[in-house]
Amino acid sequence: MHVDADRLREDIEANARFGAVDSSGGVGRTVLTGIEADRRVRERFVERLTAAGLSVRVDPVGNIVGRWTPASCDPEAAPVAAGSHLDSVPRGGIFDGPLGVYAALESVRTMQSADVAPDRPIEVVSFTEEEGSRFGVGTLGSSVAAGQRTPSEALSLTDDDGVSLEESLQGIGFAGDDTVEGDRWDSWVELHVEQGTTLTDTGAGVGIVDSITGITNCEVRITGEADHAGSTPMDERTDAFAAASEFVLDLERAGRDCAETSGAAVATAGKGSIAPNARNIVPEQVELDLDIRDVDHDNMTRMVERCRDSLARLERSRGVDTSIERYRDSAPTPCSDRFLVAAEAGATATGVESVRLSSGAMHDTANVAAVTDAGLLFAPSEGGYSHSPREWTDWNDCAAATAVLAETVRSLASDDTE
Amino acid sequence: MHVDADRLREDIEANARFGAVDSSGGVGRTVLTGIEADRRVRERFVERLTAAGLSVRVDPVGNIVGRWTPASCDPEAAPVAAGSHLDSVPRGGIFDGPLGVYAALESVRTMQSADVAPDRPIEVVSFTEEEGSRFGVGTLGSSVAAGQRTPSEALSLTDDDGVSLEESLQGIGFAGDDTVEGDRWDSWVELHVEQGTTLTDTGAGVGIVDSITGITNCEVRITGEADHAGSTPMDERTDAFAAASEFVLDLERAGRDCAETSGAAVATAGKGSIAPNARNIVPEQVELDLDIRDVDHDNMTRMVERCRDSLARLERSRGVDTSIERYRDSAPTPCSDRFLVAAEAGATATGVESVRLSSGAMHDTANVAAVTDAGLLFAPSEGGYSHSPREWTDWNDCAAATAVLAETVRSLASDDTE
Repeated sequence: MHVDADRLREDIEANARFGAVDSSGGVGRTVLTGIEADRRVRERFVERLTAAGLSVRVDPVGNIVGRWTPASCDPEAAPVAAGSHLDSVPRGGIFDGPLGVYAALESVRTMQSADVAPDRPIEVVSFTEEEGSRFGVGTLGSSVAAGQRTPSEALSLTDDDGVSLEESLQGIGFAGDDTVEGDRWDSWVELHVEQGTTLTDTGAGVGIVDSITGITNCEVRITGEADHAGSTPMDERTDAFAAASEFVLDLERAGRDCAETSGAAVATAGKGSIAPNARNIVPEQVELDLDIRDVDHDNMTRMVERCRDSLARLERSRGVDTSIERYRDSAPTPCSDRFLVAAEAGATATGVESVRLSSGAMHDTANVAAVTDAGLLFAPSEGGYSHSPREWTDWNDCAAATAVLAETVRSLASDDTE
Repeated sequence: MHVDADRLREDIEANARFGAVDSSGGVGRTVLTGIEADRRVRERFVERLTAAGLSVRVDPVGNIVGRWTPASCDPEAAPVAAGSHLDSVPRGGIFDGPLGVYAALESVRTMQSADVAPDRPIEVVSFTEEEGSRFGVGTLGSSVAAGQRTPSEALSLTDDDGVSLEESLQGIGFAGDDTVEGDRWDSWVELHVEQGTTLTDTGAGVGIVDSITGITNCEVRITGEADHAGSTPMDERTDAFAAASEFVLDLERAGRDCAETSGAAVATAGKGSIAPNARNIVPEQVELDLDIRDVDHDNMTRMVERCRDSLARLERSRGVDTSIERYRDSAPTPCSDRFLVAAEAGATATGVESVRLSSGAMHDTANVAAVTDAGLLFAPSEGGYSHSPREWTDWNDCAAATAVLAETVRSLASDDTE
């Protein structure tokens, strides 16, 4: 099989012209769900699916599927699906999402050109609102396809101006009435840019993801006493910011300690606020929003316990009041063994050097993995830049990773290799 | 001499009715420079000055002076001045400022009733915009009276809506054309609530301030790298918030160490911001605004040096970039020996227990001290609450501290005791 690198590049570049943004630092785009650029992006995708002979369906939340049902297959067999998303964050990159969607289409076209005769139909998928940039919920379309959320729950979500997802999809003509159900798929594969530097650091051409990390979020509140910064002696203060500073370092230490046994373990205090936040007032309260991830769920809980221990210690040593709420806890998602075997074989067959790694970022694959065999491939990402016009993947790297995707899909769609 | 406690209370309570705010936690007021409540406050003050036989003058920035020129004095002699301010912070207390103004008037009335025959005229003063709550510059009126700023510089300051001090004073009829010049005063005394708990902790009735701390403000910037909080391993981060947390603890340690030799030494990071401040992004930059005070200027510089050392260490150990700008540096202000002798004698004469202490808060006295002999007295402040309706001073404590003020002014205005 031979991937047509130029055709893939043409698809991604044409897609990137919709919602393109000026940037001196690279090539960017803004494609929020339901805006005019999204309509154009979707219409072109449907055209390209149709041009390749695929039959298109659109579900109520705007998920788009192109189905290839070759003569060789049992049309009733569960299909192999591949894809990603076409929306972006504001001023996002041109590969994050579109690479996976058009690589899936290119995989089908590659198989068609090579006269591959799969035993199963193949579906090329674009999920709605993966980024959550307009309606506030990430991996939204795949969550509906995986049955985690009903279409009507998703459709009633509103943007900052009170416009619902339903209205916005109707506005661009992509509120369909077909069904897209992940549990009907034999298997699922997504290709995505890494958004990290493991591949570029090792020189590998493709990353085979064995696990997507779980995510725990905690809200931490540390309360001391507001006092005059001039007239309150150092030993009479209950300074919430100083206490929070100890906590942030304890959190960092917990992340580092857990990372010694699990390299995917991370703990971040990325967001915080100080009250009253005045130069001449000893801080009364600090709120922190924590992000804790690992491929090992027990390790995640261990990091949260370290946070609780730290806060209890600060209550004793500094007299602050504290609280911590673990308001989100998504378990890690292992990729399926069938996928891992097929992907390793695909890398070998194409001569693309591969590395095993985990994904610290969330992807649609994490939702789909709950209902069928699923896997995730990474393409190299220069400098690891993400959600930015600086995001970049070399066109040759796009083609190489797509070749591995095509082989993986071919393998999964063939009964022989099972 | 006998202070009329009821008359003083009546003055402070009547003054507090202008700009009064609802509060379940106490009695509060909002009197910003130039608002209607300020006009009423000023008009009543002028009435009370006039009723006591004082001649009133108003300078271009709205500073108000009532002058008592008793028959006993040389009318050309440099006067002794006493007072404070009548403006407040939003939802401030009723004693912060007005106690010192009406205690000064009560001192004059007490001397009149007791037929005291001072050798010098006595001036009762209310300075404009001490709090800086509307025009952004604290101790504004006294800075003009002390010659640190010209009237036209002060008058051109604008509030958040672009309204100038000049317009707002004209609007309430308090843009005068008299002069108020601190260097023409023989001496100056201010009575103020402590805004701390030294007096209530020791049970003393009056605080004799021997020094007002200097203030240094520094802007600190710590810059790391923004990275994906999920896909960036712990050992590849340059987390600006973790670095800033180390810095805040170093600052606290520097303050505590300096406080071992100088109890007035304080170091505070009261204001800070994180960028981009998103839960799933490793913080790129933290900005902090520092407040460092002491009665020993060298100690203040020592604390700033400790900050520089901490930042240099963080650049080496964490790879962050840092900067620190000492954008304000006011030296400590010692109170004059003449004042200290007079105040100690005043406390003894009235039988009010006194303590020597320093002021960690800035006051108009710090400006006036640059141009004449000056001193500051404190009245007890329950719980040390300040800039809040919770601020409270017992009426008996107001009267006792006023009695000490009256004796101090009497003593300073008498050539015998010099």
